[in-house]
Amino acid sequence: MSSDEAPVLDANGQPLTKSALKKLKQQQEKDAKKKAVQDRLAAEQKDKQEANAIDTAAQNYGPISVHSQQRTHIPRTQIEHINASLNNQHITIRARVHTSRAQGAKMVFFNFRQQDKSIQGVLVASEPAVSKQMVKWAASLGDESIVLIEGSVQLPKDPVNSATQHDAEIAIEKLFTISDVPGGSLPFTIEDASRPEAEYEKEDAQFNKVHLETRLDNRVVDLRTQTNQAIFKVQSAICRLFRQSLDSRDFIEIHSPKLMGAASESGASVFNVSYFKSQAFLAQSPQLPKQMCIAADFEKVYEIGPVFRAENSNTHRHMTEFTGLDLEMAFEEHYHEVVEVMDEMFKTIFRGLNTQYAKEIDIIKKQFPHDEFVFPDQTVKLHYKDAIKMLREAGREVDDFEDFNTETEKFLGALVKDKYNTDYYILDKFPLSCRPFYSMPDPTDNRYSNSYDFFMRGEEILSGAQRIHDPAFLAQRMREHGMNPSDMQGYLDAFAVGAPPHAGGGIGLERVLMLFLKLNNIRRASLFPRDPKRLAP
Amino acid sequence: MSSDEAPVLDANGQPLTKSALKKLKQQQEKDAKKKAVQDRLAAEQKDKQEANAIDTAAQNYGPISVHSQQRTHIPRTQIEHINASLNNQHITIRARVHTSRAQGAKMVFFNFRQQDKSIQGVLVASEPAVSKQMVKWAASLGDESIVLIEGSVQLPKDPVNSATQHDAEIAIEKLFTISDVPGGSLPFTIEDASRPEAEYEKEDAQFNKVHLETRLDNRVVDLRTQTNQAIFKVQSAICRLFRQSLDSRDFIEIHSPKLMGAASESGASVFNVSYFKSQAFLAQSPQLPKQMCIAADFEKVYEIGPVFRAENSNTHRHMTEFTGLDLEMAFEEHYHEVVEVMDEMFKTIFRGLNTQYAKEIDIIKKQFPHDEFVFPDQTVKLHYKDAIKMLREAGREVDDFEDFNTETEKFLGALVKDKYNTDYYILDKFPLSCRPFYSMPDPTDNRYSNSYDFFMRGEEILSGAQRIHDPAFLAQRMREHGMNPSDMQGYLDAFAVGAPPHAGGGIGLERVLMLFLKLNNIRRASLFPRDPKRLAP
Repeated sequence: MSSDEAPVLDANGQPLTKSALKKLKQQQEKDAKKKAVQDRLAAEQKDKQEANAIDTAAQNYGPISVHSQQRTHIPRTQIEHINASLNNQHITIRARVHTSRAQGAKMVFFNFRQQDKSIQGVLVASEPAVSKQMVKWAASLGDESIVLIEGSVQLPKDPVNSATQHDAEIAIEKLFTISDVPGGSLPFTIEDASRPEAEYEKEDAQFNKVHLETRLDNRVVDLRTQTNQAIFKVQSAICRLFRQSLDSRDFIEIHSPKLMGAASESGASVFNVSYFKSQAFLAQSPQLPKQMCIAADFEKVYEIGPVFRAENSNTHRHMTEFTGLDLEMAFEEHYHEVVEVMDEMFKTIFRGLNTQYAKEIDIIKKQFPHDEFVFPDQTVKLHYKDAIKMLREAGREVDDFEDFNTETEKFLGALVKDKYNTDYYILDKFPLSCRPFYSMPDPTDNRYSNSYDFFMRGEEILSGAQRIHDPAFLAQRMREHGMNPSDMQGYLDAFAVGAPPHAGGGIGLERVLMLFLKLNNIRRASLFPRDPKRLAP
Repeated sequence: MSSDEAPVLDANGQPLTKSALKKLKQQQEKDAKKKAVQDRLAAEQKDKQEANAIDTAAQNYGPISVHSQQRTHIPRTQIEHINASLNNQHITIRARVHTSRAQGAKMVFFNFRQQDKSIQGVLVASEPAVSKQMVKWAASLGDESIVLIEGSVQLPKDPVNSATQHDAEIAIEKLFTISDVPGGSLPFTIEDASRPEAEYEKEDAQFNKVHLETRLDNRVVDLRTQTNQAIFKVQSAICRLFRQSLDSRDFIEIHSPKLMGAASESGASVFNVSYFKSQAFLAQSPQLPKQMCIAADFEKVYEIGPVFRAENSNTHRHMTEFTGLDLEMAFEEHYHEVVEVMDEMFKTIFRGLNTQYAKEIDIIKKQFPHDEFVFPDQTVKLHYKDAIKMLREAGREVDDFEDFNTETEKFLGALVKDKYNTDYYILDKFPLSCRPFYSMPDPTDNRYSNSYDFFMRGEEILSGAQRIHDPAFLAQRMREHGMNPSDMQGYLDAFAVGAPPHAGGGIGLERVLMLFLKLNNIRRASLFPRDPKRLAP
């Protein structure tokens, strides 16, 4: 007994003797044990009672795994349409559990999500409709589970800032799991995956940075962020606007083969395919077939399809497979007719995105901050000579007839932005020596060619040219490039049967998307990117 | 001298003596020789004069090979817009020499062609504007040469039946070659390539049959026929209508990778690709990525892209590469929600073609005769059981739970056409045993599945199903199919993080085109078809 304890006194106020004290202690211990047993029995009894209790809400929650048995045709409401105007309306929705939080044993707050929209849901115990069992079960649901919710729209006391729908919430009446994701089974949370890069860098950051590799390894979860939902809506829109612009000019869409019997024009790295007892190659572009379509009188063609490059480049802007937006067009007098069509096409895309996808762009901006993409009505088109001059005036040493490297391109982009306030411009008349053999020389100065690149934020997004349509001249240019015309007889044959003058270009879809939104890595612009080290998922 | 010749008489009416006769003959021969020499000299003199003559029309004809030097902005007229209402108007057009025919030394008739339209052109010598040299040069132009024509629209005396424009022709004033095709260098004529198959079979056929292999070997020329120009306009339209229908339902377009790290679901023959120091496979369908997109909350996705099948099938309806129109969609209650969307999509395509492409269909019908494609507003949807019953009633022995072969499918198609007057129907609830492991069993009878095929003219054009979205059940079904779930962990992982019930399907673009137009061979529905024996052009 320590000195600061008060002595135990008997009924008469006298301290107990040691033996009496011992007896008392024994008695107290006995009592405590007895009580513990009684408490345990009582608790067990209570549990038993609860377990045996009729769950008054049993029909209102739990898993439903079977679909396609019946059709009630009960309409489902989309979260984006729920707001204060629906006050007190009964609704049924399918959504993901974005997050949930139990408050005591009687209440669970949910943040339900559909794509890029979210709304608060509240489940409150209230027998018989919402039993304690139901609340307990609901509180145990893992994030990203898909649920079917029935309830009524209510007006929250304060605006719900954590959801996209601020002025309405759902008072949950029924809750079923359609797809159960056990807690703790996610590689990362959607919230962590949604933060701007800058937040990860903060010293007092309390959350995990989700690295790009981790995202790509778990792309299905990563793609659920608001940002990614918006990015791929914009990707889809770029293709739609591309087609819209060209359809209105009587282009037709073609589908050319990706399996080729001969390696294609550029001689650059191609993928080899085992083709029965022989070999095939994956097309590096639809260059040959689209030119054949011009020789076949289709006049104006475009194709959206995969393009394969077996280059072992591990950069922010290279993939081994990407989506090419290709077009080719016969012209009457001058290849600038084609340049103008492509220019209008790009402006249709930029304008369409800025006007129809402003909401999506704003969402993406939160995670990937960027300046608005600027372009004048009248596109800036520079002769290669002018670009050389601008670079020299800015102190760069550049050769008259050498191709620019990426760094010089970006520098030039900055100069152009500075001078013309545009993130988009055309560089025309590349030196002939920098371009493939089939590029038409400039008829007024054959050190240059009728070829062009289009740029966005200082990076190339389209490369193209007037092509040589005369088979004899084409064969001559092949020989000048050290090639043997007979190796590409099929290509030459297409022009021997008559082809009109034509020009075209190829666009990298993912590059346009990356640069417009400043995603900084091309992999973010591809659903399931492929590079020398990645073939899955 | 034979007895029936009349005797030669002298000036007095007396027959000549033999010697006098001989003398006369010698004189006559001498005179004839002299005349021949004189004629030859005169002809040589004339040729010399002509050659030395100033060609008064030298500026009005000849080759022009250089483009992109200047832009006159002179408008070019399209043949389809030329008719009697343009009488006497001066026009400039670029067109092909479809055929030409000289009439004496002073006149050449041309049939000029632009895609599927043609018009007659007439060049008549009339110094100084049209010299004899010009006419001679024009008469020597090879078919399929591309020319620039200036002239005035005139009304022909009789309707021109050989051209699509009957009520107008061009009086040619200037004629230049843009692309010269020397006579005799074509593998076959466009006219021979345009004849209906039946004409080739006629006993008195005076022309060459152009075999499919010859056409495909020289596809650039073959594609120039009116028929082929129309076929690929229709192909382009199918894709446009497909997207139009799905875009209006908030689908988004995706682009999934064709290079896969693991062989895809079906275990069927895949193409192997050398991938740096490793291996990749060409996707047999976007099945996995499109399901991953559903698990990633995109809700409704479609893709148009190449699909690769390493099957050594050399039939009229198999290719090693074709264009897949794929879609996948989350649903609320029942997979029939998805079936209905696909059904509406098909009807949008059929209606769109019949209304917007009636002209093209008529052109194609001339070479490939076919009955109009018939379908009711309310699509016929049969349960597999019903199909079995119909087949048995028609005397076929069929097993309850066996897949139909091609021949049975066609027979069933004929029965359905007979009974319901439709070329298009849906067969629902295929036996589970006929379908891939990921097909959802019918919850009311698990000998069947929630899967379906769509048919056109008795051939399958879409195959699809509700997919199993529960990872445990999916793994169980894999094991029941003798597969090891760990071999497809990536696929299972997509569902472990939560996926809504979903269904979809894959459509072969070329099959739809072939069957709608009854082209009888899938290669005719592909620009540059690929089969086990063909990788070029």
